[in-house]
Amino acid sequence: MGANNHKVRASVVGASGYTGAELLRVLPSHPRVEVTGLYGHSKAGQPVSAVLPSLSPNVYTDAEIRSYDKDRILSESDVVFCALPHGASASVVRELHGHGALLVDLSADFRLKDPDVYASYYGPHPVPELLAEARYGLVEQHRESIRDSKLIAVPGCYPTASILALAPLLASGLIAHEGIIIDAKSGVSGAGRQPGSATHFCEVHGGIRAYKTGGLHRHLAEIEAELSAVAQGPIRVTFSPHLSPHVRGILALCYAKPAAEATSTLNPQVLFETASSYFKDSRAVRVHSPGAHPDTNWVKGTCRIDLSYNIDSRTGTVIVQSAIDNLAKGASAQAIQAMNIALGFDEFDGLQLCALWP
Amino acid sequence: MGANNHKVRASVVGASGYTGAELLRVLPSHPRVEVTGLYGHSKAGQPVSAVLPSLSPNVYTDAEIRSYDKDRILSESDVVFCALPHGASASVVRELHGHGALLVDLSADFRLKDPDVYASYYGPHPVPELLAEARYGLVEQHRESIRDSKLIAVPGCYPTASILALAPLLASGLIAHEGIIIDAKSGVSGAGRQPGSATHFCEVHGGIRAYKTGGLHRHLAEIEAELSAVAQGPIRVTFSPHLSPHVRGILALCYAKPAAEATSTLNPQVLFETASSYFKDSRAVRVHSPGAHPDTNWVKGTCRIDLSYNIDSRTGTVIVQSAIDNLAKGASAQAIQAMNIALGFDEFDGLQLCALWP
Amino acid sequence: MGANNHKVRASVVGASGYTGAELLRVLPSHPRVEVTGLYGHSKAGQPVSAVLPSLSPNVYTDAEIRSYDKDRILSESDVVFCALPHGASASVVRELHGHGALLVDLSADFRLKDPDVYASYYGPHPVPELLAEARYGLVEQHRESIRDSKLIAVPGCYPTASILALAPLLASGLIAHEGIIIDAKSGVSGAGRQPGSATHFCEVHGGIRAYKTGGLHRHLAEIEAELSAVAQGPIRVTFSPHLSPHVRGILALCYAKPAAEATSTLNPQVLFETASSYFKDSRAVRVHSPGAHPDTNWVKGTCRIDLSYNIDSRTGTVIVQSAIDNLAKGASAQAIQAMNIALGFDEFDGLQLCALWP
Amino acid sequence: MGANNHKVRASVVGASGYTGAELLRVLPSHPRVEVTGLYGHSKAGQPVSAVLPSLSPNVYTDAEIRSYDKDRILSESDVVFCALPHGASASVVRELHGHGALLVDLSADFRLKDPDVYASYYGPHPVPELLAEARYGLVEQHRESIRDSKLIAVPGCYPTASILALAPLLASGLIAHEGIIIDAKSGVSGAGRQPGSATHFCEVHGGIRAYKTGGLHRHLAEIEAELSAVAQGPIRVTFSPHLSPHVRGILALCYAKPAAEATSTLNPQVLFETASSYFKDSRAVRVHSPGAHPDTNWVKGTCRIDLSYNIDSRTGTVIVQSAIDNLAKGASAQAIQAMNIALGFDEFDGLQLCALWP
Repeated sequence: MGANNHKVRASVVGASGYTGAELLRVLPSHPRVEVTGLYGHSKAGQPVSAVLPSLSPNVYTDAEIRSYDKDRILSESDVVFCALPHGASASVVRELHGHGALLVDLSADFRLKDPDVYASYYGPHPVPELLAEARYGLVEQHRESIRDSKLIAVPGCYPTASILALAPLLASGLIAHEGIIIDAKSGVSGAGRQPGSATHFCEVHGGIRAYKTGGLHRHLAEIEAELSAVAQGPIRVTFSPHLSPHVRGILALCYAKPAAEATSTLNPQVLFETASSYFKDSRAVRVHSPGAHPDTNWVKGTCRIDLSYNIDSRTGTVIVQSAIDNLAKGASAQAIQAMNIALGFDEFDGLQLCALWP
Repeated sequence: MGANNHKVRASVVGASGYTGAELLRVLPSHPRVEVTGLYGHSKAGQPVSAVLPSLSPNVYTDAEIRSYDKDRILSESDVVFCALPHGASASVVRELHGHGALLVDLSADFRLKDPDVYASYYGPHPVPELLAEARYGLVEQHRESIRDSKLIAVPGCYPTASILALAPLLASGLIAHEGIIIDAKSGVSGAGRQPGSATHFCEVHGGIRAYKTGGLHRHLAEIEAELSAVAQGPIRVTFSPHLSPHVRGILALCYAKPAAEATSTLNPQVLFETASSYFKDSRAVRVHSPGAHPDTNWVKGTCRIDLSYNIDSRTGTVIVQSAIDNLAKGASAQAIQAMNIALGFDEFDGLQLCALWP
Repeated sequence: MGANNHKVRASVVGASGYTGAELLRVLPSHPRVEVTGLYGHSKAGQPVSAVLPSLSPNVYTDAEIRSYDKDRILSESDVVFCALPHGASASVVRELHGHGALLVDLSADFRLKDPDVYASYYGPHPVPELLAEARYGLVEQHRESIRDSKLIAVPGCYPTASILALAPLLASGLIAHEGIIIDAKSGVSGAGRQPGSATHFCEVHGGIRAYKTGGLHRHLAEIEAELSAVAQGPIRVTFSPHLSPHVRGILALCYAKPAAEATSTLNPQVLFETASSYFKDSRAVRVHSPGAHPDTNWVKGTCRIDLSYNIDSRTGTVIVQSAIDNLAKGASAQAIQAMNIALGFDEFDGLQLCALWP
Repeated sequence: MGANNHKVRASVVGASGYTGAELLRVLPSHPRVEVTGLYGHSKAGQPVSAVLPSLSPNVYTDAEIRSYDKDRILSESDVVFCALPHGASASVVRELHGHGALLVDLSADFRLKDPDVYASYYGPHPVPELLAEARYGLVEQHRESIRDSKLIAVPGCYPTASILALAPLLASGLIAHEGIIIDAKSGVSGAGRQPGSATHFCEVHGGIRAYKTGGLHRHLAEIEAELSAVAQGPIRVTFSPHLSPHVRGILALCYAKPAAEATSTLNPQVLFETASSYFKDSRAVRVHSPGAHPDTNWVKGTCRIDLSYNIDSRTGTVIVQSAIDNLAKGASAQAIQAMNIALGFDEFDGLQLCALWP
């Protein structure tokens, strides 16, 4: 973490959680960023090597997790990543906002424009006055609006996998607005580092289950807000999250009916070409040919999303398969991608990493 | 495996595969069955203790896997379980049929009534003349027709999970015939004991992927044939199988739209009561309350199916969750359950086992 | 759980933990036991079907977890299984002891005869006056002393795997008393149902690590006490426990040097015969031939221990491989096995189960 | 893979196996290497994106796996990585050797100096005349001899974990030469990409087992040759490999007795300081404090080895814990590290990656 005049200085608040750790894993590969501060609460005062022994000791040589310190953060940072739980993040953002640093928030606190929608899922919003200014950090959808931003709300993991899967089809009017179903399987890291019964090893290993089906999961708000904007009309989706017995990776299968006017012309090739064209400037997206089955293991540790589009000729159902790493493209790598846009860097600076496979 | 005048004598052909092994695991708990013969091909001549060290050495004391021997099988068996791959099974069944023993076939060879449908998924049927006689061994649907059977075709794993999930709703006219989607996640044991790239440990562990989506999976034929019979009209479903990184267990989420005439009255309680009533005499079925999320770990090693029914009030979509052990209720335990019916035993003889948990 | 005059009545205190659940899984297979009461603390008042949905609803039809109730337990039980954490168990045993029921305690509280040794690992013993009366429930070592017992201390999981591996060799004087090393790999269920960082899914999955090496693990006390008794001289072992990324099963590799007087004569066959002879009346033990590599998957869910004995001819080191299911032979099935002996039943009543495999 | 005059050109022969894939994952991070050719046999003619979809499509834009082509490889490569099975590698190395390119061989073919020892484990050596020239690519032990090499034999995974753990203690005379035990647990990727029964998902998942214990594993030859050289005397070790149910990572626990002359002075601090001093110039090595338990998850995807040294004061046994990623420090990353030395680059060029965690 030595000085480098040509690099921006980055601090990470909430360094010891999984998304914080993922930021710290990826940032050393970034040619234009140096990490200048690691902040945490429960682990404050401990050396990084003890809290996150996975980080290269050649990179984080003698760093320690510091207690949150507004002034130090602001004086030593050009960009601050907030990797805190929702609620906790909002108050930190309020303090840090407006002093020059770019704020990249990985919590849910600034993802929704409508404080009432936020309230219905999370409770009253603590800083509603900042909602209008925050930009939704889904680069493939909001590249232009992110460019001049000082406050970026990094999307949730399920929304990233879901929105990018469906946006090309809604934008082009190929699928009906009604009846969209998203059946999504997540690795356990999506639930964070805090232990609990639901993520205890023995309760997860060896089986699979759904949870919060039937309209209960908070990520619905983001998914529907974004898809409605793309579709220019209200979209309601059926969303079924699952806990799959692996650590990283979301696979979402999205089902939709062809739009009435597209029914006769829709075929796998049209779907493939529509999506390929939609994402032609988005290097994070790989659209596979219609017969492909993206595997979450293909994107582990990367800022990529793997998609494939098909139609079941027997039933007429459009099927989109979408695979991301929930901690990378679904959180921390996406945060860096959005930062790259906001700071005028190349979109993929620091994000060229191949997937860890096998 | 000593003589017992009050027990029926059972042979297992294909003893060394996963469904054969599962039969041999469960049968010693059966009060009215003794296993008299274990037959196999590649492992013939080897002691059971070497081929299947998981079996209790106190039960299979000095048995060995024998080469297939029609005469010996027929002379020593009141019931024969065929746990062979499709195609191989048909020729064995042809030989053994008609000599008095009950044949319980775990392959796909006798599950479909229509040889043309069989041919479209598996190639020409080798013994079409037996198709009419075979009874589909899904006890909850065909208890009566199984009673007098001499040839039972045990359903596939995905069909078991899917058909039982949807049958109550189609039978009662609560859901529309169009637009049914089955998103099913299976453990790897469903692919059998034969090694291959797709089931190599390192290619499966740590991630999840779909396969054979878009109408390609052979189990579609069974699912649609049975559901069409229940619905008294043609049913086409969208079926997406997945390979989940665990060994045993299928979780299927089924999505459907309310039937036009039921839209205004459908609610979770109606769904729950409809299913509970439908399965009131089926002890293998547990219908959970609408908010529940069945976990495949709850049914591991058992002949049970766990179901829950709900409706997403925001979108009107009916969601059925269905969990089975693909090797147990999805294959071998179900085979025993069907045998129990055919032989006039109590339906749950030998099948009281609790799930292995955790 | 209906009345049956010919069965003993069993209660389980601590029914919702992993060893409690395992007792409840296995006991319905026991021909001479009926479960009359399930007691717990944090889950008291909840139905069994909610706390342990893995249990067969056909067996535990309408049971609920009750609050601990000394009088009810004593009036309704011929045998009480205490599946509580150490410390908590001692006080329950003190209350229940002396009123006629057989007490089978799965905690560490009554495994050690010497209260000072107990104190050095666990703190002061709350009921030292009962230590002398308790019998160590390792049936293969203490069958006779268990027969007339009213208080059985079921051994720990690591001690079960370790003691049975080494006892035949120490009893026969084949190995040196010095220099014994036990390198043991346990599944995560050994740590219990209480969530924590060390057993959080994401911290365990995908890797392996040792813990409490260098003489720190509490089970050392039991291992050394028993082995010293067998060897008729003080035994100190080097014990390295590991957390392996699976749920059930301990594999222990034990290393020893031949005793001075045995060096010239020791070979794999002698080891095999010595162990086979030692365990000739112990049906729970399977001694494999010297080249075998027992797999924990071979014993999953069973009361078995799989052993193999070999000597590395290049280095002269004796190697014993020992595999058990830590929740079954390492806890609950062993508790039932000991109960069988104490009550004069057949040692394997209710324990014939084959392993769940794959 | 565009031209870059300042980079060396690297080809990978055997690109589609796990070590080939790992080379291709890591090399794009290397500032001084460009990958110019990917060669394979069974996958020849297929695009990289189909064979290895885990590789970043932004890096390997339109590469395809080519058939082996000696002339093309030599004309387009400054360094050739051979990631072939033993035997196959030797014949390729024979062809490519002596034409200027640095050859880095990941097979076992050139790791042993003595063709008779090779023959006893692998069969007759096909190119014994090259054995003398090959340098053993364990940088921490052979940095100087690698510097001027044109043929590097990258060590095996178990040897890397074992030799580095024990070398400091043998070099300093702290431990006895007799009685060393290495109990090593490997993830399944060590067995390669070729499917087989032993690595079939369902046969590995959920349990643990040892294999090739008692002096049978081929890596013994390497381990003993290197340790004997360090100790300046013959070393024979007891080596017990295990298959643990994870993908990447070896954890080796090594046990030794203090040397006679060191017994009175040996303590954890001396061990720690001895190892720290021994590795003071080796950035790939992290020596933890004596109480630490290295986790293979801390080094996943990295060129690091994590070590901790302790002594069990109750038994006097020295315990070394050693954790590596078998595909990275145990194979491909180590190959790059050795290449860096041979080509005069910084030892850690391209190898700064943090571990993928969780």
